[in-house]
Amino acid sequence: MTCPTCGEKGILDIIFDYDLIKKVLTKDRLAKDKDPSMFRYWPLLTVTDTKKAMLTIGGTPLYRSTHLAQCLDVDTLYLKDESVNPSGSLKDRASAIAVLKALEIQATAVACSSTGNAASSLACHAARMGLKSYIFVPERAPIGKLNQLLIYGANVFLVQGDYQQTFALSKQAIDAYGWYNRNAAINPHLVEGKKTVALEIAEQLHFRPTDWVIVSVGDGCTLAGLYKGFYDFKALGLIDNIPKLLGVQSDGCSPLVDAFHFNKPFVPANENTLADSISVGIPRNPNKALNAIKASLGSWIKVSDQEILEAMSLLGRTEGLFGEPASVASIAGLKKARQTGLISRGDSVTVVLTGHGLKDPKNAQLATTKPQAIAHDFTEFKRHIKEGGHHV
Amino acid sequence: MTCPTCGEKGILDIIFDYDLIKKVLTKDRLAKDKDPSMFRYWPLLTVTDTKKAMLTIGGTPLYRSTHLAQCLDVDTLYLKDESVNPSGSLKDRASAIAVLKALEIQATAVACSSTGNAASSLACHAARMGLKSYIFVPERAPIGKLNQLLIYGANVFLVQGDYQQTFALSKQAIDAYGWYNRNAAINPHLVEGKKTVALEIAEQLHFRPTDWVIVSVGDGCTLAGLYKGFYDFKALGLIDNIPKLLGVQSDGCSPLVDAFHFNKPFVPANENTLADSISVGIPRNPNKALNAIKASLGSWIKVSDQEILEAMSLLGRTEGLFGEPASVASIAGLKKARQTGLISRGDSVTVVLTGHGLKDPKNAQLATTKPQAIAHDFTEFKRHIKEGGHHV
Repeated sequence: MTCPTCGEKGILDIIFDYDLIKKVLTKDRLAKDKDPSMFRYWPLLTVTDTKKAMLTIGGTPLYRSTHLAQCLDVDTLYLKDESVNPSGSLKDRASAIAVLKALEIQATAVACSSTGNAASSLACHAARMGLKSYIFVPERAPIGKLNQLLIYGANVFLVQGDYQQTFALSKQAIDAYGWYNRNAAINPHLVEGKKTVALEIAEQLHFRPTDWVIVSVGDGCTLAGLYKGFYDFKALGLIDNIPKLLGVQSDGCSPLVDAFHFNKPFVPANENTLADSISVGIPRNPNKALNAIKASLGSWIKVSDQEILEAMSLLGRTEGLFGEPASVASIAGLKKARQTGLISRGDSVTVVLTGHGLKDPKNAQLATTKPQAIAHDFTEFKRHIKEGGHHV
Repeated sequence: MTCPTCGEKGILDIIFDYDLIKKVLTKDRLAKDKDPSMFRYWPLLTVTDTKKAMLTIGGTPLYRSTHLAQCLDVDTLYLKDESVNPSGSLKDRASAIAVLKALEIQATAVACSSTGNAASSLACHAARMGLKSYIFVPERAPIGKLNQLLIYGANVFLVQGDYQQTFALSKQAIDAYGWYNRNAAINPHLVEGKKTVALEIAEQLHFRPTDWVIVSVGDGCTLAGLYKGFYDFKALGLIDNIPKLLGVQSDGCSPLVDAFHFNKPFVPANENTLADSISVGIPRNPNKALNAIKASLGSWIKVSDQEILEAMSLLGRTEGLFGEPASVASIAGLKKARQTGLISRGDSVTVVLTGHGLKDPKNAQLATTKPQAIAHDFTEFKRHIKEGGHHV
């Protein structure tokens, strides 16, 4: 799974024979393929069998935005809605591969440590495919995500510690008990699953992706996956350019943004953000993430938790899309990038919305104001309308 | 919207010219149609324009079940997963129509009263299409659903009262302020939106639907929609038979089950169930619901809240699908129907899973047991494994 010389820091890349793949993965074949799921890109994946019994992953909508685009002063804006995946996040794309790889080697259990989405996603697909799952979660995981794990029948270990300590314990246990390891940073197959979101974006835009693609970053695997997807399609001659990637972190936990700006290896950071999915003080895939941004000629940006909460409400009321904090951090990043001029009005932009807002009701509550209860009386209602300033 | 003679109790039916529709809605045309959304059935809908800007509604997966089917001792079981609609429930199918009808008449606002899903769904699609939304919600609505409304920018009226009182107040306000009325029972177009779930089930099963289709029932509109969809396809000659429909209610609020068993008009019931989406003491569409069951030669069944919570966990751990209480009441209903012999092992069955489990974290918590937190120490971990009875 990792480089025999460098160990855990030497995360491997999967290298494909593009000349061979070119013969089977063509625009024509894709246009005729009736499978809307991520497995339509099977020649670019590392699984031997795609199993019809899997829940439907990928094939998520790419929406053109008008209202939000106006608010953010961007001419061309697309929103990739990953929240409609079976477990409610982009992580399903990686978990699908983990479960298929585990089945390939006849493993009976899968395991991972995760701040939440990777775990619930793994538990979801493991349940569907008849595998046991062992999940290591830091105590602070939001209740919505924890419930999800338990509902999917996962064996959950709630670890007293932060994400690093949880990760370390999971590694020891996985080594000792021989479970299949879904930890995305360690397992190079999983980035290949995640890259399918880039393949979809490119295909949905008729192989002319936008100038920029924006995503929030924790460990760095989703960002690495985005780059790999566009890289593959470019190598196959299906797209001309790899979009500039913009990585977004919270200023409460921004080791990769800081590493980029100081042009140095990252320094472990505190984990002080409400965006739990990207609250990763020691990213496990820093090199792939930093390289992706450099190679795409992209950039990094950080936003505050307050800006994240405002983005949650802004996205909801302008587009009817409800994202968890890490998901909408990308919207906050776009807003800031427009303000600083990093992205111009004429640049076309795709934002990847990584996870469902329903996963984190506590923070959604912070982003909104609960109304006062009113009596069930129409006369009082009319007074309430007049006094409350509701425009009717 | 309702019969001029009977008033609110005279809910209208939409009647189609099937001979005309037969010419455009054929199996061939459907096979070639690349639109996976509910609007592929446009000739059977009552909207003049389907608006490309809409979020993608419908086209939800129909999964063949093996693990759950084994547990419930059913040979052929399909699960229709409506939780992956944009706002997380089947109600999006009706709200889509409401928003389109509102745009047709140049309304600037839509309104409804709802226990939750219809409301969040309406607010979601109104936001996307640039309409205001006014939502009347009983105070007891779960926090997940309330957050969703507020995130979508709805004007929310939290009413001190039960569903009936909330409904009554909404009706007065809608009449007074001229908002477009999305209350499903009153608005006959909305059942037409909901029926698309039946059309999809039929098409996904190659126009040979299962012997039974099971769904939980509150107001009765979803059940009425299911019947109408199968009725339309039969009238068009696309299917041979209408499946037997099984309506499921909680024994804490079962006015329609009781009306069926006593063969009498329903009596208003208390609302004592944790399945908030079907906690409707005075159903607004009782006749369509009761007629649908009779005409399909189906039946009614009630289940306890405890059985609903067990079904939530059973569905999750066997299939990786996470439903809210009202959604999985249908699974509990199937279990009971197998136990009583109402449904035989050889009968083929489709269960409609109406809404996402993430909408109601409080009840999901009741369905599971939160694990004890453990230290981040491998020696202690091994002891925990030995003592805790986790099979590894």
